[in-house]
Amino acid sequence: MNHLNTQILLASRPVGWPGPEHFRVVTTPVPELEDGQALVEVLYVSVDPYMRGRMRERASYITPIPVDGVMEAAGVGRVVASRTPEIKEGEYVGGMLGWQRYAVTSAKASRKLDPDAAPISTALGVLGMPGMTAYFGLLEVMEIKAGQSILISGAAGAVGSVAGQIAKIMGCRVAGIAGGEEKVKWLVDELGFDAAYDYRAEWDHKARIAAMCPDGIDGYFDNVGGEITDAALMNLNLRARVAICGQISQYNLEKPEMGPRLYFQLIQKRARMEGFLVFDYADRYSQALERMTGWLKEGKLKYRETVVEGLENAPAAFIGMMRGENVGKMVVKLAG
Amino acid sequence: MNHLNTQILLASRPVGWPGPEHFRVVTTPVPELEDGQALVEVLYVSVDPYMRGRMRERASYITPIPVDGVMEAAGVGRVVASRTPEIKEGEYVGGMLGWQRYAVTSAKASRKLDPDAAPISTALGVLGMPGMTAYFGLLEVMEIKAGQSILISGAAGAVGSVAGQIAKIMGCRVAGIAGGEEKVKWLVDELGFDAAYDYRAEWDHKARIAAMCPDGIDGYFDNVGGEITDAALMNLNLRARVAICGQISQYNLEKPEMGPRLYFQLIQKRARMEGFLVFDYADRYSQALERMTGWLKEGKLKYRETVVEGLENAPAAFIGMMRGENVGKMVVKLAG
Repeated sequence: MNHLNTQILLASRPVGWPGPEHFRVVTTPVPELEDGQALVEVLYVSVDPYMRGRMRERASYITPIPVDGVMEAAGVGRVVASRTPEIKEGEYVGGMLGWQRYAVTSAKASRKLDPDAAPISTALGVLGMPGMTAYFGLLEVMEIKAGQSILISGAAGAVGSVAGQIAKIMGCRVAGIAGGEEKVKWLVDELGFDAAYDYRAEWDHKARIAAMCPDGIDGYFDNVGGEITDAALMNLNLRARVAICGQISQYNLEKPEMGPRLYFQLIQKRARMEGFLVFDYADRYSQALERMTGWLKEGKLKYRETVVEGLENAPAAFIGMMRGENVGKMVVKLAG
Repeated sequence: MNHLNTQILLASRPVGWPGPEHFRVVTTPVPELEDGQALVEVLYVSVDPYMRGRMRERASYITPIPVDGVMEAAGVGRVVASRTPEIKEGEYVGGMLGWQRYAVTSAKASRKLDPDAAPISTALGVLGMPGMTAYFGLLEVMEIKAGQSILISGAAGAVGSVAGQIAKIMGCRVAGIAGGEEKVKWLVDELGFDAAYDYRAEWDHKARIAAMCPDGIDGYFDNVGGEITDAALMNLNLRARVAICGQISQYNLEKPEMGPRLYFQLIQKRARMEGFLVFDYADRYSQALERMTGWLKEGKLKYRETVVEGLENAPAAFIGMMRGENVGKMVVKLAG
């Protein structure tokens, strides 16, 4: 075991899009463990859209990452030392490990991973927070039912790609919107979406959604916001449900973008729009994970990872993810 | 009984704000009754915001009023002839009687009114569609609970003034937004609102709402839309409920107004926004009416009417109502 840690810090708060200048790599000593703690050699770290909010000073739904603090992020790794009987050396764990080579955790702050059940990196994606987000968004917030027509934006992302497949498993007709032909092909050819289109090659989203969803939309799972969401709202069926999961098109704006006021659509369609955070369902993760793991094993649920090599490339991966450079879940693999 | 009817027709479809030129008064014969019908001498007709939508060609949630058709509107009156045993001469009824002196109705299309229980004009307001809208919006869509902080826009209107009082009856803390000092005074001094302000004398609605609702907003009953709704959304509490009842600030626009995209607020607050139409609760009106009539008798529920005299003034009343010239419910009283 190396006695030096490598960490990526938030160097300054970005205004607008983050760039490499907002991050800083430092070498620090690996911390001494206290009782109840374990030291993890981090193998993969995550880049997720919500992290952009945590880089801001202003209150998000979680406290901001301090300037000169380690970038907080989900990660998975192998336990290399332990001062708690609950975690053993050699075990694999996942938790908010941060963008760093070595992380201190505890039994309460981590969950054990079985590398034989699924690759441990899936704990950052299909079997992690993004997968849980898709699951509870569809089943709890939208309460989807077989036969419904479901539209998913950001459909080739970590959450959207899982959401579309769960909706298919539940017997829905699923359409997706994604950025680029490769993603569209993946959604339709491999994940079984009934339809999808490349938003980058389209300007009339309202008409395109109408054509893609000829029976309208009973449920809209929104990861992106902006004009795609406007267009989706114009295509809602009576009593449609809209789950606002993410608004990635807006996260690098310093003030809200202007768009048409469309709340009257909600009256006309008696539609419901609800924002949600997956953390509110934490007490039911294990039950959902069991079901999702079953679907994975049965081949009903597929996933793809876009793997970036090297902790030092985490900032670039994060920025690239917000630009849509990932297909499926983007993870950063640390040098072994 | 006069054998001539006076009717107000939709002369042409307004673009933007309606004016007198979009209406036309005609004299026509009083129609002959068929079996099952009754003839009503109309005593009051209603002017309601939703009627603006029905003047448009494009699909609203109800079919448009045809050009040269009688302006469809709720009304109350006295039966002057009947060819159905279910309705007797001399009885009072309410229904979609239209802007006209005499209307044909049927037992199915009307409800009987008891002039001893409450003035019949209340069937257009507190004991009519607006009252039902307030009731079901609060109790069903928002599911308000005692102790919650409720904000109501358009608070001095037919719906808002009832909504605020029902929320008070349910044990909520109620704040209102209305146009003009007279309305604000009425809300606070007579209806028991805990706070209210005049939106016409304020430019920073976000700050003003924050000051008026120091514990935030658990429920927002929206009648107006636009920047007031934007400001309300910025003041939501965790798991707040927003009922989109009306968007009167938008009804005379030919395309949606631009406003800040605020859906992220719904994520941050895990808030729910839902549009509704009172007609969906029609099978429970009688139960609600019974309760509301009780509150009226107990003095817990008060109402005010802004009465415009003369059928020929219905267009001006309608336009005035959309400008906020009414305190409480605006009705048009026909010459006796």
